[in-house]
Amino acid sequence: MNDSPKVIGGFWHRLMELNRRATIPAVYRQLKKTGRIDAMRLDWKPGRPKEPHIFWDSDVAKWIEAAAYTLRDRPDAGLERRIDRIVRLMKRAQLPDGYLNSHFIAVEPDRRWTNLRDNHELYCAGHLIEAAVALNRATGNTEFLDIVRRYADHIGRIFGRGRGQKRGYPGHEEIELALIRLYRATGEKLYLDLARYFVEERGRRPHYFDLEARARGEDPRKFWARTYAYCQAHRPIREQTEVVGHAVRAMYLYSGMTDVAFETGDRTLFAACRRLWRHLVERRMHITGGIGPTHENEGFTSDYDLPNEGAYLETCAAVGLVFWASRMLRVELNGEYGDVMERALCNGALSGLSADGEKFFYGNPLAVQPGFDGNGHYVGSGYHYRRSEWLWCACCPPNISRLIGQIPDLLYTCGPDWIAAHLFADCESCFDVRGTRVVVRQESGYPWDGRVTFRVLPDEEKSWAFFVRMPGWCRKPLLRLNGREQPLENICRSGYARVARRWAAGDTLQVEFPMPVEMVEAHPSARHDCGRVAIQRGPVVYCFEEVDNGRNLNDLVLPRDPDFRVVRNGKGILKGVPLIRARAMRRDISEWGGRLYKPADTPFVECAVTAVPYFLWANRKPGGMAVWVLRNSALP
Amino acid sequence: MNDSPKVIGGFWHRLMELNRRATIPAVYRQLKKTGRIDAMRLDWKPGRPKEPHIFWDSDVAKWIEAAAYTLRDRPDAGLERRIDRIVRLMKRAQLPDGYLNSHFIAVEPDRRWTNLRDNHELYCAGHLIEAAVALNRATGNTEFLDIVRRYADHIGRIFGRGRGQKRGYPGHEEIELALIRLYRATGEKLYLDLARYFVEERGRRPHYFDLEARARGEDPRKFWARTYAYCQAHRPIREQTEVVGHAVRAMYLYSGMTDVAFETGDRTLFAACRRLWRHLVERRMHITGGIGPTHENEGFTSDYDLPNEGAYLETCAAVGLVFWASRMLRVELNGEYGDVMERALCNGALSGLSADGEKFFYGNPLAVQPGFDGNGHYVGSGYHYRRSEWLWCACCPPNISRLIGQIPDLLYTCGPDWIAAHLFADCESCFDVRGTRVVVRQESGYPWDGRVTFRVLPDEEKSWAFFVRMPGWCRKPLLRLNGREQPLENICRSGYARVARRWAAGDTLQVEFPMPVEMVEAHPSARHDCGRVAIQRGPVVYCFEEVDNGRNLNDLVLPRDPDFRVVRNGKGILKGVPLIRARAMRRDISEWGGRLYKPADTPFVECAVTAVPYFLWANRKPGGMAVWVLRNSALP
Repeated sequence: MNDSPKVIGGFWHRLMELNRRATIPAVYRQLKKTGRIDAMRLDWKPGRPKEPHIFWDSDVAKWIEAAAYTLRDRPDAGLERRIDRIVRLMKRAQLPDGYLNSHFIAVEPDRRWTNLRDNHELYCAGHLIEAAVALNRATGNTEFLDIVRRYADHIGRIFGRGRGQKRGYPGHEEIELALIRLYRATGEKLYLDLARYFVEERGRRPHYFDLEARARGEDPRKFWARTYAYCQAHRPIREQTEVVGHAVRAMYLYSGMTDVAFETGDRTLFAACRRLWRHLVERRMHITGGIGPTHENEGFTSDYDLPNEGAYLETCAAVGLVFWASRMLRVELNGEYGDVMERALCNGALSGLSADGEKFFYGNPLAVQPGFDGNGHYVGSGYHYRRSEWLWCACCPPNISRLIGQIPDLLYTCGPDWIAAHLFADCESCFDVRGTRVVVRQESGYPWDGRVTFRVLPDEEKSWAFFVRMPGWCRKPLLRLNGREQPLENICRSGYARVARRWAAGDTLQVEFPMPVEMVEAHPSARHDCGRVAIQRGPVVYCFEEVDNGRNLNDLVLPRDPDFRVVRNGKGILKGVPLIRARAMRRDISEWGGRLYKPADTPFVECAVTAVPYFLWANRKPGGMAVWVLRNSALP
Repeated sequence: MNDSPKVIGGFWHRLMELNRRATIPAVYRQLKKTGRIDAMRLDWKPGRPKEPHIFWDSDVAKWIEAAAYTLRDRPDAGLERRIDRIVRLMKRAQLPDGYLNSHFIAVEPDRRWTNLRDNHELYCAGHLIEAAVALNRATGNTEFLDIVRRYADHIGRIFGRGRGQKRGYPGHEEIELALIRLYRATGEKLYLDLARYFVEERGRRPHYFDLEARARGEDPRKFWARTYAYCQAHRPIREQTEVVGHAVRAMYLYSGMTDVAFETGDRTLFAACRRLWRHLVERRMHITGGIGPTHENEGFTSDYDLPNEGAYLETCAAVGLVFWASRMLRVELNGEYGDVMERALCNGALSGLSADGEKFFYGNPLAVQPGFDGNGHYVGSGYHYRRSEWLWCACCPPNISRLIGQIPDLLYTCGPDWIAAHLFADCESCFDVRGTRVVVRQESGYPWDGRVTFRVLPDEEKSWAFFVRMPGWCRKPLLRLNGREQPLENICRSGYARVARRWAAGDTLQVEFPMPVEMVEAHPSARHDCGRVAIQRGPVVYCFEEVDNGRNLNDLVLPRDPDFRVVRNGKGILKGVPLIRARAMRRDISEWGGRLYKPADTPFVECAVTAVPYFLWANRKPGGMAVWVLRNSALP
């Protein structure tokens, strides 16, 4: 096992510092205030406020996980004590058989494991496990790891195909990928087997959710979400070919599937992962990496249904996509996974967090109109869709926080004789390659600048391969080895440049990804984007805000060949951020008078427009926003 | 009082015949089947099926009203017997005090007049009154009229500002305009006063709906619709300046207000009507005359919020707009009212009825995507939004039917010394002008052809004025008097050409409204239509259906100056209907491969497109539909 890279500067470092200094304390305050942390005291009594909810343990666990990541680089005794206090509460709360869930112990003790479809016991268990593994890895803490092992052992006794076991699996996936992390942390194969069981049992007949509903005396046909596709349990996972249902659940399932495929080498399982991946990225992913367009199932609808205004695109779903992509990369070095990981991270996930690190979006639409909420419902003329300090269903705040904490883990993967760089950051990393220790120092102004330098410092000279992802958005990447340009056509495959050599201390790999402003179009079947383009620079998708461009953003028309200029004179939260300026046109409103419709002959007037990174929107004066803008097609 | 014109041929006559032969029998069958007609037997008992619903009397009444109109031109003993049987049930059902409501007598006898806000007693009463007046006018039947007079007298005793009276008014307006019809039919001023009371009491403080809720032991702040703007009762009507809330309720209220203003000459009341009218037509009306864009309140949202896909635009709301416009015209001869009446009638209202006259739309969106319902929710890949044979809330089917029955009443209005023609139809009409009988024969291929001929046949030569509406969509109307062209600039005002002369038998007025295909644009603040145009020919808005144009309708781009051709070679329901053909462009999908996003450089390919009248959509092979299509703006 290699240590995680240390991110030491630049964009990602600032983000991680924001997370450490602002987001983690802010989330903790809310967890405390809302009773989530004290829920583990198990002293709630009927009729009292702050009844522990079935989600709550997961919120606390995700916060511990996020906090643990910050402890890797920077010990913080206060934070550790805070975590320890919670772990002690959990230790006291855990039942003798290993069961641990504040809701079901305090509120519904008779209902344990009676409704896997709707309740979140296994989901919460998964997050506890992830948190314990992260904490163990960061600080060496074994107390929490022991707790979750006992819990996992309990789960392993309850669920499975043995006599007297329940053949159940979670309605909200998460335990699968968590068990893989526990397996990796402990080497205990039981956890791998259990993860595999949960993945493979899913959707089989007779359907466990049917049996379970009947055991509760309910008619399974009256499932509130109507179809088990909601939780990807409509058929066995190897037979699933379309990404469906609740988007976060889907991402966690696919992540777990991919992990199991990786650990077991199961080709048919990975083939299913690939099919689902193709379907997602070719039909059902917004340009921001946001996924799950509707609030109705918090999930997927139909192919090419990529609405802008009112699109749900839960922060957690984009976070989940980053997780899945990082796992696909582990199985198969393909730049597409890295591209999507980067897309979701830099756009649809990061937009979930305010620039001050203390406010959160649940939904991340690609266009917003004053007066309308994030689901596109009119809620009143004074309303503006804004990030909130907290959310009743608080999955997103600690999720974006723990994603940011994991950024170092997304940067590289390595094998016995190779290192692969997926994302770019100012960081220092240490790998064990062919038995020798290799330090790699990376310098990069990413994502604002496409120049990246890797300095390779092996303890011993050995032959191995360095893979560098050539981002899919980059048309003309350049690679220099010790100052000498390398012809990429020979060494580039599946989105990675492979530099194989006997690496010596001080060898330097430089890559350059020119970042012109690009206009991107969506597939003609993506009906919401027809006639429109999105602006992208490097991996960052831009948007137009009312504060910069006035009202009627949908009426802005970019010329066929805009004179894009990148400027860095922004202030406040835009300080140092590349902004995109251009001349555009809009209809001349001065002659309209009171008419609502008129013959189509209105002249256009020129105007200057400014686009800002999408993930930074809604941090200044509230107003409308649009990612996709009209472009003059200049046809006959 | 003049007789209604007789429509004797052409478009409107075919529609009225369809109504008589198909729609009226179809609606009757459903009323019977669903128990609505037998509800008046009052023999429902708890636990039995077909519990009379609070809406039901209105459905039956609207059917009687629609049927009555057909009896004006064409007696039908079978139909009259059918009506008589229902009227006899009502007579038996009516309580000694005059009260008549099948739900409240049979189901909740203790709840009479306890919840005007949510229940529909006064609404149902209004429809009974409208039906009785229509029947009386058509056949001379007085039995029904007597019933509703007793009911109206009862209502007049219950409601008002006198001691012991309730200062209530309906949550769903309708009684106001109905009482005006009753006043006109009977000359009884009490009914006018009661209508005026209902209009003027609305929204005053202390708020009746608050008092009433408290009397029921409810907290008025917990009103399910949150705000009394839902039913236009948020403030007194003279202080209302914006059209808000439930669109059908709004139209019925404004119709009643306008009627009261007309009958009383109340200028401040009409000023309020005008303000509301301006707000509606300048900010909140779809190009089809559809209104009320969201299903959430079945009504209005914010200015310029004119979505296409998922727009609600209830058939009844467009029907109500026709009613209101016709009433505004009675107070003030202004072509804008006629334009909107025609727009709503020919497009947003008529689209509610299938070409076979037996199926109905509740919502009339301006774009539809397979798999999505009328509210824009994804419901499944096999789904197509289609008209239904019936609707649980069945307001629309008999409403479009009674609107069609009233078409003759929309064609003209007249005063002591003038006649005004608003809509154009093959019809024969008889007026009393300056004491003499004037027959006007109108010939017209409207709305497919803009040539209209009026032959004026007065019994005596007298001086009076003939007003003809010059439709707002027509740029170059032409008018000939006895073959001689008249310079319109001198005689045209407020959208009407005024031909004042001593009219002699055989005088002929010819008007010509050239109907080139027009591209129409919406206000730049109408964000859903930016970059797009709608196609209109004469008063008829066109649309593009998948059956003619393939998929991805949103990607069609009309050139700046399309080569529109009008052809009449359609088959089936399109036989004889002008279809619009043009060459357009669409992106070449052949090179796309699996990509969802790519640099914006896809070439376009030419294609032929066909547009059909919007009101005729969804009568052939199911598929997508779009009214607004991209147009190349041909900018630099």
